[in-house]
Amino acid sequence: MPAKFFSMGVAISDVEEAFLRIQHRLHVTPLLRSTSLVDTAASNCVGIPAIVDILFKCENFQHTGSFKFRGATNAVLAFLETTPNTDVVFVTHSSGNHGQALAKAAKDANQRCVIVVPSDAPTPKLAAMEDFGATIVLCEPNQAAREQTCARVMAETEASGRKAVLVLPFDDDRVIAGQGTLGLELASQLPTDVDAVVVPVGGGGLISGVSLALKAKRPGIKVFGAEPANANDAARSFAAKRVQKHTPGQPNTIADGLKTTVCDRTLSHILANVDDIILVTEDEMKRALRLTMERLKVVIEPSASVGVATVLFQP
Amino acid sequence: MPAKFFSMGVAISDVEEAFLRIQHRLHVTPLLRSTSLVDTAASNCVGIPAIVDILFKCENFQHTGSFKFRGATNAVLAFLETTPNTDVVFVTHSSGNHGQALAKAAKDANQRCVIVVPSDAPTPKLAAMEDFGATIVLCEPNQAAREQTCARVMAETEASGRKAVLVLPFDDDRVIAGQGTLGLELASQLPTDVDAVVVPVGGGGLISGVSLALKAKRPGIKVFGAEPANANDAARSFAAKRVQKHTPGQPNTIADGLKTTVCDRTLSHILANVDDIILVTEDEMKRALRLTMERLKVVIEPSASVGVATVLFQP
Repeated sequence: MPAKFFSMGVAISDVEEAFLRIQHRLHVTPLLRSTSLVDTAASNCVGIPAIVDILFKCENFQHTGSFKFRGATNAVLAFLETTPNTDVVFVTHSSGNHGQALAKAAKDANQRCVIVVPSDAPTPKLAAMEDFGATIVLCEPNQAAREQTCARVMAETEASGRKAVLVLPFDDDRVIAGQGTLGLELASQLPTDVDAVVVPVGGGGLISGVSLALKAKRPGIKVFGAEPANANDAARSFAAKRVQKHTPGQPNTIADGLKTTVCDRTLSHILANVDDIILVTEDEMKRALRLTMERLKVVIEPSASVGVATVLFQP
Repeated sequence: MPAKFFSMGVAISDVEEAFLRIQHRLHVTPLLRSTSLVDTAASNCVGIPAIVDILFKCENFQHTGSFKFRGATNAVLAFLETTPNTDVVFVTHSSGNHGQALAKAAKDANQRCVIVVPSDAPTPKLAAMEDFGATIVLCEPNQAAREQTCARVMAETEASGRKAVLVLPFDDDRVIAGQGTLGLELASQLPTDVDAVVVPVGGGGLISGVSLALKAKRPGIKVFGAEPANANDAARSFAAKRVQKHTPGQPNTIADGLKTTVCDRTLSHILANVDDIILVTEDEMKRALRLTMERLKVVIEPSASVGVATVLFQP
């Protein structure tokens, strides 16, 4: 049976439109270098070509602390462009970054937002969503409860006469186009002789957009996904060319943002534009996390360390 | 009796020469924004004008993790320009950043370096100096032992037929000119409507160079020093117009890099170019340190938090 794919719903023109739409609301985040981390990577690298330089795209300096703000902002503004003057409530379920991002994106557009949050979500992330004016609805910490609660919130909103707009964290073309603006920004910032870009993979929204933009603008650059070996659904899906769910015992990783699995929509982009998916161990991620704080002086979350670990510790 | 001043040995032309000399060895460090920290500062600020924006100059992303690399590199390269083909050993005493900076600056220029380090210096900083190939000579943890050991190292070096060059952390015109390159970089990066720049003060090398450069290039910008209330020698020296040493019980601060006192050389620059010195409490510094990690996602040391605290918590 042939693999079932979504047709790729996002084109480079969508990413370019998204960039024009959201650019004025974004920070341009810097590329940082650490000579000491280049030395670490070079000493662990026995492959050809050898690593001679590394640039770190510090998207953790983006509003709300992650790239998620790009996709959420694009989804909110794109909806309001096509449907102005609607009494609208943006809805999602999230335990972290996407929820904060949608909360701020909605607030910046003077719109309401409801986030369904599992009861085990980290308190600071919940507080941040509330600071951005979002209404929080707690649910049991499992996927079924999240989706059911989300559906109930949507139905109640519509029953009250307002339009409910669901903005999923990655299974959404407007979100993927928004994340792709990070790829456009990278394409303009990277030196001409860069060989490869490494992008962490959770649900695959970021790498879908970034790989699309880079292959369009800088086709000579290889794009690799980085994934925890203990949550290797993307690597297995990439090999099988169809979505593979977690195996028993998975996900078991410190990278809480990468515990989700890719979907048909994101896998179609990954198969089209990503060169390979590289796996790293939990120990490598912990070492990368620490080295990033010590040497680069940048605070990252575990889900970001998977990309750093890939570059520092791969032979 | 009139106050005794050094004539100011550093002019803007010296800073500009330093920039041409060392620019290719530096990272251009970014200015970062955090909307959330602007909100914190605005809510604490009752003065006029109100705080509407804050930019953080992340010089902790410089080589060796601090601005000290600018001054050390300028001192090393300026010496080698005037005295080429000498068998030279650069010498200093330091428990931290200046030692690392001189070690790397000497290594980059293929020169030897000896750092006299007090026996209570933090192990990671010592390890970094050794990684840069410096020879470490331990001494008792007090100023007299540091200076005596340094003098002994200098004498032994000269006795062995090599030239010993002392590079003090701030009481040195070439070091001040090097730190001033941060001011030139700032002058080119800052928006036109910036009202004030805040610079931490320890020995005063950084603020001497930065205030000199800013008053030359952007004379409309006020320059404030930031200092722990528990190590307020600079504020008292500024008021008295002559160097004041620490009072009994001082310095007692988490800002280990600011425990030193200003000297005649740096005070003359401060009196000429700095508008005022602002004091912050240890509690304010601790809160600023934490907020910088949480919100700005940047790892800073306590000595840098004094500047952040000044901006966030001053009424």
